[in-house]
Amino acid sequence: MIANTPGPPYYAVIFSSVRTEGDNGYSAMADKMAELAKSQEGFLGMESVREELGITISYWLDLESVRKWRENLEHTFARSQGRAQWYKAFKVRISRVEVDYDFIKGSHLK
Amino acid sequence: MIANTPGPPYYAVIFSSVRTEGDNGYSAMADKMAELAKSQEGFLGMESVREELGITISYWLDLESVRKWRENLEHTFARSQGRAQWYKAFKVRISRVEVDYDFIKGSHLK
Repeated sequence: MIANTPGPPYYAVIFSSVRTEGDNGYSAMADKMAELAKSQEGFLGMESVREELGITISYWLDLESVRKWRENLEHTFARSQGRAQWYKAFKVRISRVEVDYDFIKGSHLK
Repeated sequence: MIANTPGPPYYAVIFSSVRTEGDNGYSAMADKMAELAKSQEGFLGMESVREELGITISYWLDLESVRKWRENLEHTFARSQGRAQWYKAFKVRISRVEVDYDFIKGSHLK
């Protein structure tokens, strides 16, 4: 669901991807990576949705925690040689969240 | 699909939402807003996926084009009083993309 992140600034790692056909160990890897993210210092939350296009956004306290997370991703891809078997294409964007605001029905938060 | 954005820096407006039941004019509004975004100065691309959670990310050249886009969103919500009928909850995050990299199967771009 919508990640309950603290006030900005913080970082968002936007992972946009198109999968290959078949699982090829993808689901197990994805579950493992989500667990790994949650246990990592500086992790603030994650949002993930997939149709044909998939978007997974992880939120982080600072650039140091983003750097470690990115290394974990790269190590996983390198170890498993999974990148080409899991994805037709992906794009990673590392961004600094500067402003946020929200709406919750029935509340008057902002 | 994955938006073909130019090199950073640029801006990402991350719109995470949970819909109410029923359409209530939502689809027509969403189509109109997507068209409006594409015609607006500084628009670089858009990615959108929905399961129960929906994520729509629009990419923009600079903060000025983000500001105008945000005003358009707010005007649409205000005019239609649609916010509460379309969404149970949403969160908007305005972020500055500082680094990006991609993978395309069969290519050696990066």
